[in-house]
Amino acid sequence: MTPLIDGLQYANWSERIFRQMRAGGVDAVHVTVTYHETFRETVQVIERWNRWFERFPELIFPGRSAADVTRARETGRTAIFFGAQNPSCIEDDIGLVEVLHTLGLRFMQLSYNNQSLLASGCYEDDDTGLTRMGRAVVAEMNRVGLVVDMSHSGERSTLEAIEQSSRPIAITHANPARWHPARRNKSDTVLRALAGSGGMLGFSVYPHHLKGGSACRLQGYCEMIARTADLMGIERVGIGTDLCQDQPDSVVEWMRVGRWTKAPDYGEGSADAPGFPPMPDWFADNRDFGRIAEGLRATGMDAAEVAAVMGGNWLRFFETGFGAAAPGRT
Amino acid sequence: MTPLIDGLQYANWSERIFRQMRAGGVDAVHVTVTYHETFRETVQVIERWNRWFERFPELIFPGRSAADVTRARETGRTAIFFGAQNPSCIEDDIGLVEVLHTLGLRFMQLSYNNQSLLASGCYEDDDTGLTRMGRAVVAEMNRVGLVVDMSHSGERSTLEAIEQSSRPIAITHANPARWHPARRNKSDTVLRALAGSGGMLGFSVYPHHLKGGSACRLQGYCEMIARTADLMGIERVGIGTDLCQDQPDSVVEWMRVGRWTKAPDYGEGSADAPGFPPMPDWFADNRDFGRIAEGLRATGMDAAEVAAVMGGNWLRFFETGFGAAAPGRT
Repeated sequence: MTPLIDGLQYANWSERIFRQMRAGGVDAVHVTVTYHETFRETVQVIERWNRWFERFPELIFPGRSAADVTRARETGRTAIFFGAQNPSCIEDDIGLVEVLHTLGLRFMQLSYNNQSLLASGCYEDDDTGLTRMGRAVVAEMNRVGLVVDMSHSGERSTLEAIEQSSRPIAITHANPARWHPARRNKSDTVLRALAGSGGMLGFSVYPHHLKGGSACRLQGYCEMIARTADLMGIERVGIGTDLCQDQPDSVVEWMRVGRWTKAPDYGEGSADAPGFPPMPDWFADNRDFGRIAEGLRATGMDAAEVAAVMGGNWLRFFETGFGAAAPGRT
Repeated sequence: MTPLIDGLQYANWSERIFRQMRAGGVDAVHVTVTYHETFRETVQVIERWNRWFERFPELIFPGRSAADVTRARETGRTAIFFGAQNPSCIEDDIGLVEVLHTLGLRFMQLSYNNQSLLASGCYEDDDTGLTRMGRAVVAEMNRVGLVVDMSHSGERSTLEAIEQSSRPIAITHANPARWHPARRNKSDTVLRALAGSGGMLGFSVYPHHLKGGSACRLQGYCEMIARTADLMGIERVGIGTDLCQDQPDSVVEWMRVGRWTKAPDYGEGSADAPGFPPMPDWFADNRDFGRIAEGLRATGMDAAEVAAVMGGNWLRFFETGFGAAAPGRT
């Protein structure tokens, strides 16, 4: 049976949410563990996860390889795969790529809205592509099996990452700009290059990425997925809800502002609506994936296609994405 | 065939030394990666090891479990197991115990000569035993499979660690005080308690731990081992050379002084002889283990006993020491 995998969540984690994952039959989730945190601060977040793994072993466990998704399904639990939305966690130290991979990191964005040491973010005026360190780090990520994620990066940086990376990359949580021209959504050029290189797009349910925002209807969302599958190939797309359940607005402020400015920055929001937007009524939490699956069937997809989008494609991507590039003898 | 395992080394690592390990048929070594280093500094040392693993995959690889010792033997390499000689690396954060275990740490001393947050060192005037944090950390080390090492701790702290620990502990590099009454060597009381709890003693070749120092003869060393095996049981003893090959004297200064004092502290040395003492002529590097094995045969041990001391006992200890205490479902 095909697994159910979410390509990105960043919730205010709790037993309640872990139980909702089980109720929703979610086999694996890529969870964000860090934005602007230093390495040491990121390790503290991993420590918090270790406590949750210790407290709730019947609900969740650390995911390291694609085999853990199968194990999750077989044991009725959810495998948790760590990811970084910004490379602050590796500081200026390429050696931390392997260290964080050993600690469970499986995705890392090269930038988050702003310029980073590695690449430009999608909110910068000028996107100068991958930096010198960016190219070195992509090669190191390729070597150890840490997936390059360009969800919050600029167009040129994204295209260069696709080109530079010897292994397929991911855009774990975004939608096509053609459907909803938000700064965070991706052009057809990016989507075609991503698909052509064997990469994956995870469709976001975060309201700022949706046509109509919080009022977006399920049907429109699912039709967008079907059209994008036509463009990219059905095997290149999955779900990446960007679910930020139960988070206080202070968290979205940290995501946008970090420590890089003293002035407010509203990112995709605005001064009038600085907080997290309300989720669409058809996707409130992990128990609602079945609705998306039904919505996809209603667009005319067959059962195999729906299963591929809901997790089969991510599973295949995990199978080739997370191991060492040249296993060698170690 | 029984493996050859060294219970402690802290060399100035190089390709030359890794090749000597191979020439000496050394299947596994517990290497020190940290003394007074903070967590972040310890991670930098691990990063350096990761580069060595990347550069010399035909010589060394990271050891994580007892099975890696067998794998080392089968593939003609040396498995490297990390250890800490002081708990500075976990700072004041018990969550770092599991994090460092994930990064490969398999031994941690609760103190190094001085008082630590966890226990008293063997050079303090008063040994107050395990601290509150010390008891908590021992329980956490037991849970994740990080071996408690009391090589540099005081007598009371050592006895309390043996008592408090739910799993056997180790003194990876020391000798009996009865043979040579150095501050770092251990009383019969400690050795009996260690053996009675299923723990292990690794016999040191560091001259300050030897009767006669650098001039100690192989025969005397091996007879000491045989007598200690009579006291503790042949299955409770192994080798832990404390080989500090090719290190500049600045390293022994760091080991002794760290950042805790501005005055010189000579530890086991003296103002006249502040540096590393010369090794005895029968043990210069990893190619000399065969001499110790021969010396043990000469004391009257049979081949099986010699094999147990040279690695079989450590292998058995690794088998039960490094895994999670209650594997549970993760």
